Amino acid sequence: MTSAQAQLPRIEFWFDPASTYSYIAAADVARLEAEGRAHVDYRPFLLGPIFARQGWADSPFNLYPAKGDYMWRDLARLCAERQLPLQRPSRFPRHSVLSAGVALVGLDAGWGKRFVMAMYRANFGEDVDIATTDGLARVLRDLDLDPAPILADASAPPIRARLRAATGEAVARGVFGAPSFFAGDTLFWGTDRLDTALRHAQA
Amino acid sequence: MTSAQAQLPRIEFWFDPASTYSYIAAADVARLEAEGRAHVDYRPFLLGPIFARQGWADSPFNLYPAKGDYMWRDLARLCAERQLPLQRPSRFPRHSVLSAGVALVGLDAGWGKRFVMAMYRANFGEDVDIATTDGLARVLRDLDLDPAPILADASAPPIRARLRAATGEAVARGVFGAPSFFAGDTLFWGTDRLDTALRHAQA
Repeated sequence: MTSAQAQLPRIEFWFDPASTYSYIAAADVARLEAEGRAHVDYRPFLLGPIFARQGWADSPFNLYPAKGDYMWRDLARLCAERQLPLQRPSRFPRHSVLSAGVALVGLDAGWGKRFVMAMYRANFGEDVDIATTDGLARVLRDLDLDPAPILADASAPPIRARLRAATGEAVARGVFGAPSFFAGDTLFWGTDRLDTALRHAQA
Repeated sequence: MTSAQAQLPRIEFWFDPASTYSYIAAADVARLEAEGRAHVDYRPFLLGPIFARQGWADSPFNLYPAKGDYMWRDLARLCAERQLPLQRPSRFPRHSVLSAGVALVGLDAGWGKRFVMAMYRANFGEDVDIATTDGLARVLRDLDLDPAPILADASAPPIRARLRAATGEAVARGVFGAPSFFAGDTLFWGTDRLDTALRHAQA
């Protein structure tokens, strides 16, 4: 960390690759960092086990169709405002354990934040199946990365254990959805609360 | 309606008296009208039957405690930003059929918008039991209104029928939570989308 980064407000960004609103949040936190306004710690985790504890075997956007129909229209407006591509994925939500693992590998190696944005664009802007090694290999190659060793690491026990631990940490800290942000130990839920989290981190 | 009102962007504000975030929205739409920026049609309805259709016998903020704990902290921040009083009600959610009926009576009579703001302050700022005739009588007296005939009208069959019809209209138009707004036939959900609804109504 440079001394300039040490001065910046710090925010944690908790995301699941399958989460639609996390696509928006990934773009927004990337802009915050690009503008030198915050340092963002990317924290991939899995919503599936959290939803299962709430009794949901599927995304609430599928379980509650009126809510889901609205979400896709709302997402289209949010993407248009940011000039982000949107193509409703042929499958939603996509299984996210492998892509979350790749994110962890990449965050260790220094290319994780670029991967996260590319992965979200692929999932929600291009209907690439990020649940599969083929889909993720395409995303990684587009970033000039060699997919094979990365995908092997991403599905190996150490990364799986870290993902489980991250998900347990999320539950312990009160996370119930994605995207979530922390400023210190204070939780903020939803893309709409990023500005509030930033103000909290500045204070 | 005056000709000045006819020029203003029009928004529908759909609310349930038991809904915490509708308290915030009621303050925000009242400010929009006070500043002459919009004409707001107040549409009371009942969330209970809509939640029941989704399989919920209680507020999701009670069914999912992590979500509920977060909501109360988030609500405290939103109230503080607006200098609105907040006292966590001793019972949540309160049964809202009678207060929604009073709102309908008042909207017909011209004092409905004042009542809605006073009712939300009572419920969420002063822990007044707005499910009861005593609690509502207190709110009405504070507005210099005679409670007895109003409460009689509010619980009579014509108002009950209009409330059921409003709830059915909400379902038919895709409403799944409160507050909701419409600009024309376009639905916006949540206080955070009021600005977007207003832009849509202006366009």
